[in-house]
Amino acid sequence: MTRYALHIQYLGTNYRGSQKQPQEKTIQDEIEKALCTLIKTKISTIFSGRTDALVSAYHQVLHFDTANHINKYKFINSMNGILPEDIRVFDVEIKDNNFHAQKSAKFRHYKYVIRNDIIKSPFDTNVFFCRYKLNEKRMNEALKYLLGEHDFSAFKSRSDNPAKVCKIYLAQAKRSADGKYIIIDIVGDRFLYNMVRTIVGTLLLIEKDNLEPLSMLNILKSKNRSNAGATADAIGLTLVHVGYDDCSDYLKQINT
Amino acid sequence: MTRYALHIQYLGTNYRGSQKQPQEKTIQDEIEKALCTLIKTKISTIFSGRTDALVSAYHQVLHFDTANHINKYKFINSMNGILPEDIRVFDVEIKDNNFHAQKSAKFRHYKYVIRNDIIKSPFDTNVFFCRYKLNEKRMNEALKYLLGEHDFSAFKSRSDNPAKVCKIYLAQAKRSADGKYIIIDIVGDRFLYNMVRTIVGTLLLIEKDNLEPLSMLNILKSKNRSNAGATADAIGLTLVHVGYDDCSDYLKQINT
Repeated sequence: MTRYALHIQYLGTNYRGSQKQPQEKTIQDEIEKALCTLIKTKISTIFSGRTDALVSAYHQVLHFDTANHINKYKFINSMNGILPEDIRVFDVEIKDNNFHAQKSAKFRHYKYVIRNDIIKSPFDTNVFFCRYKLNEKRMNEALKYLLGEHDFSAFKSRSDNPAKVCKIYLAQAKRSADGKYIIIDIVGDRFLYNMVRTIVGTLLLIEKDNLEPLSMLNILKSKNRSNAGATADAIGLTLVHVGYDDCSDYLKQINT
Repeated sequence: MTRYALHIQYLGTNYRGSQKQPQEKTIQDEIEKALCTLIKTKISTIFSGRTDALVSAYHQVLHFDTANHINKYKFINSMNGILPEDIRVFDVEIKDNNFHAQKSAKFRHYKYVIRNDIIKSPFDTNVFFCRYKLNEKRMNEALKYLLGEHDFSAFKSRSDNPAKVCKIYLAQAKRSADGKYIIIDIVGDRFLYNMVRTIVGTLLLIEKDNLEPLSMLNILKSKNRSNAGATADAIGLTLVHVGYDDCSDYLKQINT
């Protein structure tokens, strides 16, 4: 058996998230169905991590094993011929058998985009709309308190995983050149369930109630979910990248 | 009666073009229905020009007359409350009675975007896909022959309007920073029916058959539609802007 890593992107709008669920249309179902059609045997896949219903990915990684030989370009073409147009395979590569899409990942980069204008744009595909004026400098200041290694219990929705410590390498908010969008980028080694959306919800709470940016630190320290803001809508969230090497080069690259 | 100019944007994917047609869903129908709901009387609108089925607009302008007083912010909000989300009103202004959305327009800016990569993007909303590698330098060279005042008979689909002379102020092709898109910008005083799409179709023909960029000039001079390329797909086309002043300031602005 050979282990392959598959690199995909998808628009999450029409799916109930990435992970297989009974009687729901998910990204993993579509990928496994396409693999089964192509390789002519049932294939199980492991994703780098789950994305929620409606959440999109520019770059998601998964692995699977097969005894079949895969011709890279033919395979990419065939998969894209079978898959619905909102899911695309853009790369496939042979990996060592100890490669694991989830466990080998060193960092994940999530982006949350807010249309912050008086009107929505008909051209936005995965953007949250917020009509009241947000202050990106204050949001950026609040995000800085999350950098480094912390217990993120205050920002998680479920408690199924006992490990609550995550390391955040980048957390920033910027307004787009045209002034109409706020783009929040967060890069970390791992993320708890709904963590990015709860961080964004907390930023929105800080803005709406005009709290001090320092509130973010107090909420983090409290380790109490009820102090944080509501989970922000899934529609603004995109998994930008999953990295399997140290993230320093990646951070340099995205900050230029 | 007061004349108002309405500034709108729309994603054309779900519409049979901008102009009213019996038994078809069009942008003009949606706008006139919304105006009628709001102003409580039948309102006729005149658009700056028609956009084809599937074609989008970042900035389309139309005018209408009403005896009712319009409160700008309330009106924009109410219209956007009534309209489907793929059509947005972003401005309304009082005009002199001699203002005419179509006849007073000094220039139009169209953009045609081609995804030129081996895979489509799930995130593109109004982009044409072309898998074979295009040479944007050759395309740009071919476009330069269109600058200035010419008879564009070679690039029009129908012959209902006897005036065939248009003045082209800008015609350029550029590859996007990520290398995956070719963006064609054309600004002119007026455009014949399907003219931008036929120009793009001719660029694609020149690339596919590896013709000299000079072929564009020969096709233009021939004034014969059968020498030009096929009409390119509507999906890549967007009306970017309609201008009512001299275009020199606008051209400076988009080229910075």
